[in-house]
Amino acid sequence: MTEPGRAGSNPTWLDATAIRDGDHYVINGRKWFTSSAEGAAFAIVMAVTNAAAPIHQRASMFIVPAGTAGYSVVRNIKVMGEAGEDWASHAETLFEDCRVPASARIGEEGAGFSLAQERLGPGRIHHCMRWIGICSRALELMGRRALSRELAPGQALASQQTVQHWIADSYAEIEAARLLVLDAARSVELRGQRAARVKISAIKYFTAGVLQRVLDRAIQVHGAMGLTDETPLAYWFAHERGARIYDGADESHKNVVARDVLRSLQ
Amino acid sequence: MTEPGRAGSNPTWLDATAIRDGDHYVINGRKWFTSSAEGAAFAIVMAVTNAAAPIHQRASMFIVPAGTAGYSVVRNIKVMGEAGEDWASHAETLFEDCRVPASARIGEEGAGFSLAQERLGPGRIHHCMRWIGICSRALELMGRRALSRELAPGQALASQQTVQHWIADSYAEIEAARLLVLDAARSVELRGQRAARVKISAIKYFTAGVLQRVLDRAIQVHGAMGLTDETPLAYWFAHERGARIYDGADESHKNVVARDVLRSLQ
Amino acid sequence: MTEPGRAGSNPTWLDATAIRDGDHYVINGRKWFTSSAEGAAFAIVMAVTNAAAPIHQRASMFIVPAGTAGYSVVRNIKVMGEAGEDWASHAETLFEDCRVPASARIGEEGAGFSLAQERLGPGRIHHCMRWIGICSRALELMGRRALSRELAPGQALASQQTVQHWIADSYAEIEAARLLVLDAARSVELRGQRAARVKISAIKYFTAGVLQRVLDRAIQVHGAMGLTDETPLAYWFAHERGARIYDGADESHKNVVARDVLRSLQ
Amino acid sequence: MTEPGRAGSNPTWLDATAIRDGDHYVINGRKWFTSSAEGAAFAIVMAVTNAAAPIHQRASMFIVPAGTAGYSVVRNIKVMGEAGEDWASHAETLFEDCRVPASARIGEEGAGFSLAQERLGPGRIHHCMRWIGICSRALELMGRRALSRELAPGQALASQQTVQHWIADSYAEIEAARLLVLDAARSVELRGQRAARVKISAIKYFTAGVLQRVLDRAIQVHGAMGLTDETPLAYWFAHERGARIYDGADESHKNVVARDVLRSLQ
Repeated sequence: MTEPGRAGSNPTWLDATAIRDGDHYVINGRKWFTSSAEGAAFAIVMAVTNAAAPIHQRASMFIVPAGTAGYSVVRNIKVMGEAGEDWASHAETLFEDCRVPASARIGEEGAGFSLAQERLGPGRIHHCMRWIGICSRALELMGRRALSRELAPGQALASQQTVQHWIADSYAEIEAARLLVLDAARSVELRGQRAARVKISAIKYFTAGVLQRVLDRAIQVHGAMGLTDETPLAYWFAHERGARIYDGADESHKNVVARDVLRSLQ
Repeated sequence: MTEPGRAGSNPTWLDATAIRDGDHYVINGRKWFTSSAEGAAFAIVMAVTNAAAPIHQRASMFIVPAGTAGYSVVRNIKVMGEAGEDWASHAETLFEDCRVPASARIGEEGAGFSLAQERLGPGRIHHCMRWIGICSRALELMGRRALSRELAPGQALASQQTVQHWIADSYAEIEAARLLVLDAARSVELRGQRAARVKISAIKYFTAGVLQRVLDRAIQVHGAMGLTDETPLAYWFAHERGARIYDGADESHKNVVARDVLRSLQ
Repeated sequence: MTEPGRAGSNPTWLDATAIRDGDHYVINGRKWFTSSAEGAAFAIVMAVTNAAAPIHQRASMFIVPAGTAGYSVVRNIKVMGEAGEDWASHAETLFEDCRVPASARIGEEGAGFSLAQERLGPGRIHHCMRWIGICSRALELMGRRALSRELAPGQALASQQTVQHWIADSYAEIEAARLLVLDAARSVELRGQRAARVKISAIKYFTAGVLQRVLDRAIQVHGAMGLTDETPLAYWFAHERGARIYDGADESHKNVVARDVLRSLQ
Repeated sequence: MTEPGRAGSNPTWLDATAIRDGDHYVINGRKWFTSSAEGAAFAIVMAVTNAAAPIHQRASMFIVPAGTAGYSVVRNIKVMGEAGEDWASHAETLFEDCRVPASARIGEEGAGFSLAQERLGPGRIHHCMRWIGICSRALELMGRRALSRELAPGQALASQQTVQHWIADSYAEIEAARLLVLDAARSVELRGQRAARVKISAIKYFTAGVLQRVLDRAIQVHGAMGLTDETPLAYWFAHERGARIYDGADESHKNVVARDVLRSLQ
């Protein structure tokens, strides 16, 4: 990043401000990883409206239409070497004295954090479902490759016990993730997102871990081909390394679960 | 083992014979790990009744009452250094020209293997349920220890992130195992044991793995105390190392699952 | 533990006191895991001589001959279910108004902690060397079992790729541990124990981890026999679970190493 | 890959042929992963000169100057989504009736395999050395990020025990790899490459494993920034996934080591 004085430091959600000015807000700030900003009709911005408020009531959310003066997409940030485009991109966006009407605010002033939380629960379940889909596909590719690749005439790679056990471990882990995710989704439905909070944290790191291991095994079974674009495995392996980071790093979600288990014992 | 010529080799289920003699069978063989033989009213013996039959139809099962001439409990085999006693023991048993009436045979001649299979499915589910109970108890002990043990005045062990993450990983893995086991049990009920065969194999190695990891973490949280008899953790850790071996080693069950996954792709 | 008010809590090295009384000290305290106390000619006791001193100068060390009034061996603590005896035991010892002459003190008053530290470095290297010996023996047993055990006539267990890879992983990890330990020992010799402190911490957790994994694999290769006393594997597996705990838990040694790496970057 | 009938299958070193024609050879074949072919002055080609010979004497090596008729660089194969260029690329190359003088042959006819083996030993040590360099750099980046990133004012990420333990584990594993590689290199020097064969196989999979784990931890410490091009970590993580595959997959090298250990016990 070239911005002076910020080298090595990406901004946090608390680094942008939206100052009330009559019936408008003036937004200033720089954002990283604004997913799908390129080509989007509008951006949703989280900005601090009251720096003196308690931390969870400091920020509000705003809709900023593309083309608003002062709003620009600086670049698509390369993720694992690829900038992507359109929907499949993550931009650095910049807000410089960007003025929007007060009606652009979503919900109450100060409601930004709680709005984000509300969206994040289902968002995390959605990611987990998506990862399970990727895992199932990767397991299938792993199996097909093991069956078709010959080590010697008549001896398929699938005859190797190591490959068989990668398949078996992947199968069990994917099934475990699937049942955990279904259980968390059911809990959201029956008892609400707040009550399902711990289950959602648990599936986030559990499933992201399964995803990484299954993709790693699938690539190993494919050998050098697994590194190329002949299969989607390399793309998933590189791009979904983020699964253990985005929407809350493994470590944060484990903290949540541990706190809850410990609280239940006190 | 003192038996000449067999040093370093435990007998397999095919090493005992039951030869028909009129309306009796004469059983000869040596068995290891006859669970709960000490004090039991009878033994169930699997022995080859027809060595020329296809492998899965070679053996039959017999009930041999304690006290039958030629049947003896040689010793309780030490498991992880403890011979145990009564119900909680695993004997070496010996059958020397042990004569039982033909009516002692369970089911048809040659049905031994399929009878064993029928019992093993539910037996494995039962083990998994038991292991999940142990895991839950171990997680509770881990948490309580983390809360009560002080590193310094006012600073509990539970404040250490490593301990928190062991708790979080254990929680997620135990929940995953619980849901997988329930799913396998439901499958047995709805579709029968044969159809649930792959699910049963998967829970066997998945849950045994969770068990070993959870116990290992719980001991580490307890420090030196975790090695003593002050908690049940040391007993479980040592005695349930067998979980990955008895009723089919991890490796065998993984072979079963892999074969099934691969077959579905052909 | 039966001591009222202490249930669930083993004493620390700061819990015993030695109060000066003329040219004697009067020692009170309870100790756990006093290795080889049974049958020993004397005990070495660490006790607080000045509770007001800085923490690392609070304690002194004393030699207490067996038979001294007020000193008793309460019991051998069961480690993984076995109390052991003599040299191979770890006692709970009790000091009740146990009076020793001032000449029984080792070194200066307040030198207890630094004396312990001096002994611990070489002691840890010694443990690592011992563990590597156990690992080498376990690898040999694993290999021999793999060669002699037949899955089917003419097909040895060693033909299984999973077993081969356990052997290969064990080989590489044992070699790595061996070279690390030699390097740490060389460093002690050339630069002194203090300078080698970080290397000693690193080999402690690295080698203890290798030990646990190698023993685990060796047992799995032996199947049910690996759980019995037919080989030394079960004894090692159970008794050396302590390797990751005694002489400083993994976690403490990792803290030491991390602090040093981080300091070098500041 | 677009070649009809070859979908999902990359060619092996046995798929190209070089047919003697007077004092020339005519080469036909398609190669994948020809490193640095783009812009290179010549290619070294391995091709079968005698299909009837024992497998290790079937192939010979040839130098084919760029510009030779019938030799073309088809494309740079994308590795983890990037085609690279020049030195840092891996091409698909094609040989169609490509005619070279017999003097282009390196060494004897049929010596291709043994020439490759001779180069591979030192080549693998070179890779391991390179990976250790990457690991050291990644550990430094991990530490610096942990020190500079604040979780809250005044509280650095380095205060998190999980991060500390990643640093400690990485330190020990990198040191272990370094000593193993030095030992293997010394062995090549003193006893020759053939004698060092097993050590070279062991460092190949051991070091590649360390590399993958260290990079994974370094990325996790960097969070979302670890996925971008702000540090070299993402590039290494993606591009060095191949480390466990190229110059012999982990699994092949483990087979070599296991065979050697087992042979020594017979």
